[in-house]
Amino acid sequence: MAFTEQDHAERMTRAARDAADAGLSGLLVTPGPDLVWLCGYRPTALTERLTLLVLVPESEPRLLVPALERPEAEAAPGAGALRLSEWRDGQDPYAAAAGLLRPGGHYGVSDATWSLHLLGLQEALPLTTYRALSTALPMLRAVKDDHEVARLAAAGAAADATYEAILSVRFAGRRETDVAADLAHLLRRHGHSQVDFTVVGSGPNGANPHHEAGERTIEDGDMVVLDFGGLKDGYGSDTTRTVHVGEPTDEERAVHDIVRQAQQAAFEAVRPGVPCEEIDRVARTVIEYAGYGEYFIHRTGHGIGVTTHEPPYLVQGEQRPLVPGMCFSIEPGIYLPGRFGVRIEDIVTCTETGGRRLNGTPHEMAVVT
Amino acid sequence: MAFTEQDHAERMTRAARDAADAGLSGLLVTPGPDLVWLCGYRPTALTERLTLLVLVPESEPRLLVPALERPEAEAAPGAGALRLSEWRDGQDPYAAAAGLLRPGGHYGVSDATWSLHLLGLQEALPLTTYRALSTALPMLRAVKDDHEVARLAAAGAAADATYEAILSVRFAGRRETDVAADLAHLLRRHGHSQVDFTVVGSGPNGANPHHEAGERTIEDGDMVVLDFGGLKDGYGSDTTRTVHVGEPTDEERAVHDIVRQAQQAAFEAVRPGVPCEEIDRVARTVIEYAGYGEYFIHRTGHGIGVTTHEPPYLVQGEQRPLVPGMCFSIEPGIYLPGRFGVRIEDIVTCTETGGRRLNGTPHEMAVVT
Repeated sequence: MAFTEQDHAERMTRAARDAADAGLSGLLVTPGPDLVWLCGYRPTALTERLTLLVLVPESEPRLLVPALERPEAEAAPGAGALRLSEWRDGQDPYAAAAGLLRPGGHYGVSDATWSLHLLGLQEALPLTTYRALSTALPMLRAVKDDHEVARLAAAGAAADATYEAILSVRFAGRRETDVAADLAHLLRRHGHSQVDFTVVGSGPNGANPHHEAGERTIEDGDMVVLDFGGLKDGYGSDTTRTVHVGEPTDEERAVHDIVRQAQQAAFEAVRPGVPCEEIDRVARTVIEYAGYGEYFIHRTGHGIGVTTHEPPYLVQGEQRPLVPGMCFSIEPGIYLPGRFGVRIEDIVTCTETGGRRLNGTPHEMAVVT
Repeated sequence: MAFTEQDHAERMTRAARDAADAGLSGLLVTPGPDLVWLCGYRPTALTERLTLLVLVPESEPRLLVPALERPEAEAAPGAGALRLSEWRDGQDPYAAAAGLLRPGGHYGVSDATWSLHLLGLQEALPLTTYRALSTALPMLRAVKDDHEVARLAAAGAAADATYEAILSVRFAGRRETDVAADLAHLLRRHGHSQVDFTVVGSGPNGANPHHEAGERTIEDGDMVVLDFGGLKDGYGSDTTRTVHVGEPTDEERAVHDIVRQAQQAAFEAVRPGVPCEEIDRVARTVIEYAGYGEYFIHRTGHGIGVTTHEPPYLVQGEQRPLVPGMCFSIEPGIYLPGRFGVRIEDIVTCTETGGRRLNGTPHEMAVVT
């Protein structure tokens, strides 16, 4: 089921209202996930040419586009709910944009808006001020409706199928990049249109939480962190499981079990009203209590939706409460430098009664060959 | 042949010197093509976590990275030529960055730096000012060395091979997206690691210069614009040819011939010292003289290098001169709304004695089936 013009109109109206509630004159959104979510428009290419959605309370949404991209913009699902205007090569796009803004206004601007554009607006309208959208309205896209949660669950199911299939491929003797290519192929086969990451961290590489996949040949006896995801039908997947090539040692089992317990404890702490940082604290406490606190070197999770990485962040200092419909990863880990790493990650949605996982493969450490 | 630490050190030194010459205190560069070009570092994922290269004349280059991405950064080809520092989740990255900047300084900032980061820096250092890198130093990456031109030529040769192969696929009765998938497959088969665009604009869709590829079924008698490219070995390709399904009409031949003449005239105008806008004017004059001026609705070209879209821009108002080593597209077109479009595009490098094409398939309108 596609999102309709009505869906997009409602999102734009709500965003403008939220902006006003946050003390902003309006919102400025350039191509990227915010634009896709608000009006369904994703230009063919992200270029230096300015495309700008301007949302102001009580006004019709306006979308300024390069003239030659107008036909694409007109075809966007939300195009009927906004007014298009254009600028042509050779004209000053910031002067054109300034005509849609209030001098002296205070606008939220999408995080990934190019500095080229922000500096252009700052020069065109020196009295106007700006605030990053994730600072001003961090939770704008954070609460998903049922339709969005269903898409995330479908992406999670595809990640589950990918994980189940990867368990039967050969690990020992193949390079990390080979297994990563298998993961990418499987995600696509299970309906992903975009693969964002396929981390294969074997042995000591697993101790670097953002190691992607390298030329290292996986060996018998390796712990292997598999962290993979992307977009299916416009919504994200992101799953991590840590597997072992052959029989693990007692220590490897023990570390894996601590991470598993931390993940489970954090999951069980999910309910409406709990501050985001509390989920991080719960996971961290389990790991600290087991004596591995210094080896859990990242936050516990991040939101997911039309991107695989967005608010809410489950990190110390994030005191905003969980709200039903929020969807996020819970992914504690332990990283022993030069030796191995373990991470377990699920996507979880907060419901009225607690957490619900949107992916569902077992947490037990699988043994692969 | 890979670029060495020495190559990157020289680029960083030159960039800092150019910044000083342009009246800047230094350059601030976040992940993207500028960062890849300067220090060879491409983080696994582009996220909201700040990664910032700071280049200041007469100082060692500094790279601030999220702690968990440090191992990746240390593995970058240029890492030996800079000093790394890190910030951890929960810390304020802008405070960390501010420590590397001079209060009251005036810095160039890479175009695609997220506004989130620029606003963070503006708040952390209210007296410091910023200028977009493409405004301050538009030609920083524009002049390619021989090694870079060779990579662009290799990408162009792969695009040539792709075009030659696409001429023998079936067009009539297949959807544009099917032919686009063929183009993507061929680019990859000929060594591209990344496909940036595969435009297939058949019949009336060809009259929208940025139409990508849609569900339209290509018919006998259609004009079809094919515009495809991506990255091979880190450098870009970008070629357009317009083909015809079956025999073209006299009018179609005539329009194609005007575009061919415009492209050739613009190519012949390339030599050192000629203003960029002059190349645009030459192409436009040919088309205007033939009576189609109002249907050439975009600029004549753009630079290419580690991206498929960068300065120099061949557009009215760009008075900077061509310099030997610059590489750019020349791509005039005529777009007849609701009917068809024609575009012909080559990548050209400016040499001491004139232009040299970096791709070489014939310009004659090919007849496909």
